[in-house]
Amino acid sequence: MPDQPFQPLFSGYAARVRDSFARQSMMATMGADLTTTGPGHLTIQMPFHPGFTQQHGFLHGGAVASVLDSACGYAALSLMDADSAVLTIEFKINFAAPARGHSFRFAADVIKSGRTVILTEGRATSLATDGSARLIATMTATMMAVRGRGISD
Amino acid sequence: MPDQPFQPLFSGYAARVRDSFARQSMMATMGADLTTTGPGHLTIQMPFHPGFTQQHGFLHGGAVASVLDSACGYAALSLMDADSAVLTIEFKINFAAPARGHSFRFAADVIKSGRTVILTEGRATSLATDGSARLIATMTATMMAVRGRGISD
Amino acid sequence: MPDQPFQPLFSGYAARVRDSFARQSMMATMGADLTTTGPGHLTIQMPFHPGFTQQHGFLHGGAVASVLDSACGYAALSLMDADSAVLTIEFKINFAAPARGHSFRFAADVIKSGRTVILTEGRATSLATDGSARLIATMTATMMAVRGRGISD
Amino acid sequence: MPDQPFQPLFSGYAARVRDSFARQSMMATMGADLTTTGPGHLTIQMPFHPGFTQQHGFLHGGAVASVLDSACGYAALSLMDADSAVLTIEFKINFAAPARGHSFRFAADVIKSGRTVILTEGRATSLATDGSARLIATMTATMMAVRGRGISD
Repeated sequence: MPDQPFQPLFSGYAARVRDSFARQSMMATMGADLTTTGPGHLTIQMPFHPGFTQQHGFLHGGAVASVLDSACGYAALSLMDADSAVLTIEFKINFAAPARGHSFRFAADVIKSGRTVILTEGRATSLATDGSARLIATMTATMMAVRGRGISD
Repeated sequence: MPDQPFQPLFSGYAARVRDSFARQSMMATMGADLTTTGPGHLTIQMPFHPGFTQQHGFLHGGAVASVLDSACGYAALSLMDADSAVLTIEFKINFAAPARGHSFRFAADVIKSGRTVILTEGRATSLATDGSARLIATMTATMMAVRGRGISD
Repeated sequence: MPDQPFQPLFSGYAARVRDSFARQSMMATMGADLTTTGPGHLTIQMPFHPGFTQQHGFLHGGAVASVLDSACGYAALSLMDADSAVLTIEFKINFAAPARGHSFRFAADVIKSGRTVILTEGRATSLATDGSARLIATMTATMMAVRGRGISD
Repeated sequence: MPDQPFQPLFSGYAARVRDSFARQSMMATMGADLTTTGPGHLTIQMPFHPGFTQQHGFLHGGAVASVLDSACGYAALSLMDADSAVLTIEFKINFAAPARGHSFRFAADVIKSGRTVILTEGRATSLATDGSARLIATMTATMMAVRGRGISD
């Protein structure tokens, strides 16, 4: 959690985040939906998908990482000025439990927002049919605000 | 690269790796093929896939991470005894360039093989139609040999 | 934060943590003091030390990482059984701000406690002479409970 | 290893690296010496130091990380223009073996050099009195070229 609430630099941040997310074909292919977006915060929901499992039938760790990467990236984009696009510099994911479950929730927060480099954190939770939730993975990701390279968000 | 060549503990390691990889539905969904497997080493190839892009039309960083995770995991499994299954404890990925390209090559190596914990590294390279190659990402991943938990590879 | 409070497996955990911390000569050399310890939680305090700076006169990032590593390791040890010793498998640190300040506070929490592998998180904060606090770094670290290898904590 | 040799942007890079390293009081306190520097490459040597151990008497993982961080940072600085200073954005370290040994060697290489963000890798090796070498840790670190913030290298 940041020391104080973040102020967006671009008033149209929420629409830009939703539009850019909608252009990520991978999120649509996996069935991941952007559920909430705020300044420096974002959540995504995704049902279990049999086309994205690892060898034991759980959701593939890479699928979990992919959605967390998008969540962290768009949490960062929500705080960028209108001329910036977002790229991932790096992320690390730790797995706390196998990704079994009926659906999955992904939450990301900006921890430190700089002009060029933005530090973010994400958490993935599995939801069972009885409503119980379980932490399955945590991510820390470094995002970059890119300007003047011919890409936009 | 390890100090010395690794000796597999299970003579049927190559078939086990191929069988387990074939059960990862995510790899099939993305069109990723296991190309070579040796003791502590593995390569995967994947053509560009329009269903797995990020917002600028490049391959999603999470797709790159997913294949590298599988490559690192199976490089680790190739050195495990017959009773072990492999789970990812954590990985970190650094992106060196956007994943544009005609196809992609993923290579993974075991760096240190312990009884329970195995340290691996992976590299992802993009291949253009003119044959030129470019490093797009590097991964370090910690894998765990799991025994007696009702899962197998 | 964990889903629920952790229960220590070893009733003498607090004394063991303090004794083991006292054997880490590096913490004494840097002037780092263990301030609080609870099940799955630990804090360390350290004044600025001119012998541990980087080239711009701030505390070296490696010094910050060293104390966070100890904090995460002992948060993990606090939940281990009496026969286990703790070793760090890996950690990642993200720097949010240069480590300037009058003193520094390091806090670590266990996120997921397994029999062999324990996931932890740490935060480093700088404290100015006027009392203001600032986040300078975050860590995620994987700790291992080691048994029967001739080392003890 | 990079695809091709790096060309330094600043002809005085080697002297700048040595001067900046000499201002890191922590390296002197630990007894770490810069041994070689080239464009995108650096090595450091350090004898075992009883003031920097963890609880089992091995070199503290944070000490290993501190020297690798410096090695990676100065490998990055060697490729920066004359107006840049170097700061660490993040690093991850994986431990391959406890840091026992008579002395230690740290090597770092730039993997990808961008204008603002530089990706580096480091390896730490322990050397026994009989001359045998053993990998003890690997690092990946992201460095930033900082300009116009009132700090210099």
